[in-house]
Amino acid sequence: MPSTPHAETFPAPTPAVSQVFTTVLSHGPLTRLEAGRRAGLSPAAVTKAVRPLLAAGYLAEDADEDARPTPGRPATLVRVNGERALFLGVKVTGTELIAVLTDLCCRIRLDRRRPLPDRAPGAVLTSIAGLVQELLAHAAESDAPVAGLGIAVSGDVDRAEGVVRYSPFLDWRDVPLAELAATTTGLPVTVDNDVRALTVAEQWFGAGAGLAGFALVTVGAGIGCGLVVHGQVVAGAHGVAGEIGHVVVDPAGPECHCGNRGCVEAIAGESAIVARMREVTGRQVDDSAQAVALAHEGVPGAREVYARAGEAIGRGIATVANLLGPERVIISGEGLAAYDLFAGRIRQAFTAAAFGSAARCDVLTRPLPFEQWARGAAAVAIQSFITQPPGIGQG
Amino acid sequence: MPSTPHAETFPAPTPAVSQVFTTVLSHGPLTRLEAGRRAGLSPAAVTKAVRPLLAAGYLAEDADEDARPTPGRPATLVRVNGERALFLGVKVTGTELIAVLTDLCCRIRLDRRRPLPDRAPGAVLTSIAGLVQELLAHAAESDAPVAGLGIAVSGDVDRAEGVVRYSPFLDWRDVPLAELAATTTGLPVTVDNDVRALTVAEQWFGAGAGLAGFALVTVGAGIGCGLVVHGQVVAGAHGVAGEIGHVVVDPAGPECHCGNRGCVEAIAGESAIVARMREVTGRQVDDSAQAVALAHEGVPGAREVYARAGEAIGRGIATVANLLGPERVIISGEGLAAYDLFAGRIRQAFTAAAFGSAARCDVLTRPLPFEQWARGAAAVAIQSFITQPPGIGQG
Repeated sequence: MPSTPHAETFPAPTPAVSQVFTTVLSHGPLTRLEAGRRAGLSPAAVTKAVRPLLAAGYLAEDADEDARPTPGRPATLVRVNGERALFLGVKVTGTELIAVLTDLCCRIRLDRRRPLPDRAPGAVLTSIAGLVQELLAHAAESDAPVAGLGIAVSGDVDRAEGVVRYSPFLDWRDVPLAELAATTTGLPVTVDNDVRALTVAEQWFGAGAGLAGFALVTVGAGIGCGLVVHGQVVAGAHGVAGEIGHVVVDPAGPECHCGNRGCVEAIAGESAIVARMREVTGRQVDDSAQAVALAHEGVPGAREVYARAGEAIGRGIATVANLLGPERVIISGEGLAAYDLFAGRIRQAFTAAAFGSAARCDVLTRPLPFEQWARGAAAVAIQSFITQPPGIGQG
Repeated sequence: MPSTPHAETFPAPTPAVSQVFTTVLSHGPLTRLEAGRRAGLSPAAVTKAVRPLLAAGYLAEDADEDARPTPGRPATLVRVNGERALFLGVKVTGTELIAVLTDLCCRIRLDRRRPLPDRAPGAVLTSIAGLVQELLAHAAESDAPVAGLGIAVSGDVDRAEGVVRYSPFLDWRDVPLAELAATTTGLPVTVDNDVRALTVAEQWFGAGAGLAGFALVTVGAGIGCGLVVHGQVVAGAHGVAGEIGHVVVDPAGPECHCGNRGCVEAIAGESAIVARMREVTGRQVDDSAQAVALAHEGVPGAREVYARAGEAIGRGIATVANLLGPERVIISGEGLAAYDLFAGRIRQAFTAAAFGSAARCDVLTRPLPFEQWARGAAAVAIQSFITQPPGIGQG
């Protein structure tokens, strides 16, 4: 394995330091004044937080060319020095690994995909290690140290403990992935639920930037949801949060793998749609692409399958809106490929089930390929690096 | 009207000042060190925040008798000086006003109830003004100024704007209650949703103290829910949040006043239970007390009505747990009088519908009489006083 200086540490990550860094990362370059306004900190607190970050090279200063001339010293802009450290992010699906190498600004420098022939934890770890090796070899061409690896997995993931408690698509239970991957790769590892990781990237750089509260709903093999409330991603006291896929919308509906009936995922998840399409049309349907094709061909009953899925998703989103009142709901995921088939019904069901002014919430769609999910995994690695909570793999 | 010095203002309410004050209010008396630890602030920040609060008399210092002798000056404890200011809180139900006079520590000094003969906004305002007069007369016996009035109303309430957007039980739409009540009483007025106000009191002084995330579910005429996420009550971008009563648990269920079918409230709200009880038993049932009596008498079908309500509430709670992963769910409200009739089913439905480790959430019940709801209204008035957001009625 290439030698990487992964003992890299962030200077004195007090809450103010982490907050200022994140604010500049997401909205920078910024003046200190503007960074303070956005982070809710006094100018003195910003100056104090910025100083060690400049000294250690994590932040850099540039003159503000656009600033109006003011008496005294010129305005300077603070920005994150992307070259200072590198991060790796890996998204694990049931069939594939998607990995990125990013800089400290979370800009993707390189991305790679690799099929996952075997879902057993040991085999997945070996595949991850191979992919990490490949990206580390590229990273070694730069002077910047690789300071962390983020791994995003669907299901019930306890980030603080670094454990995948239950992942239906991998068929994993209680896998201490952070510890195992830290041993295998020699890097500090952060493991998180994949939708929550993507939500961090959307909060920092995407359609959630600057919003105190939003929801990211992902439609695909599973139906997931990342929630930002009071400016922070909701992780849940025991690792479970955002399980919109297991909101029951029809107690008489189809059985779900979770043991209940009529969950959003049991109606609108990919395999549910494929199964229902077979049932309704009597045809051979192997995957989503075929299901979409049947609906587009106008095969009797096929469109109704998507309408029903859209109804379930819309109701699920309304439940989130009624409970949390987000400013915005972002819909993404592989399922967007079929979005024209259920968009109308999602909106209709959402509007009907939203209570009072919860209906004012802005609902939009945004395609985010798996490389963006892997970037989310790199984002949580950066998040761990700049906050360094005690935990497994936080070397 | 007795003259009250209501131009009282809190010194420089920066985020740190408000946070330190709230921490001491909720957990004090505390040493500065402990206050900083709980508020996530540095000792220097605490010292800076405490200074003006001590100078203005909102905080007071006592020697810490229990402290071990240490070299240098003795440890001192900081506490809120309850005598420094008084607050009024009013909870408005469909039939009654419940009011309290509290000190700055939110301790109830006096409580009063008054029937509400008319629900029209003008009539309710006149009743509130009369009750406020009565409490102000008592307050005048003390030297402390009355610094704010909180009014808690069920429904869709926009606290920032001071407007009751929709209150089903009062049949109000878009009533600018804060402005009207400020004009009538001459006090700074904060209006909030009643369950959210009660949640603030529970967060500061009740079963939610010290928890980063919890839900307070109230069962009664309506089914409400106050949510605390990341240590703050969720208000929603447009004023709507916590609408557990309008989570749809059975799309084929009874019609709800919100226009949907099978909402939790349409199955488990008081009037839904009473109506269903009439239908099932064929008897004359006028109110909850009679419905409870029928179930306790073992009238055929009567217990099943509560079981069905319990099922709906349990599913609603599971939805909250699956989306937010709270540490605790507190169940309260007038409906607790019948709790023995649906407790088992609530728990059973919650456990069945909770996803993975969301089921680990602690579910407990806690009787909170309407005086506690009025105290919640006083708590939001204190909250406004110590944060002074721009808004109607704020000074």
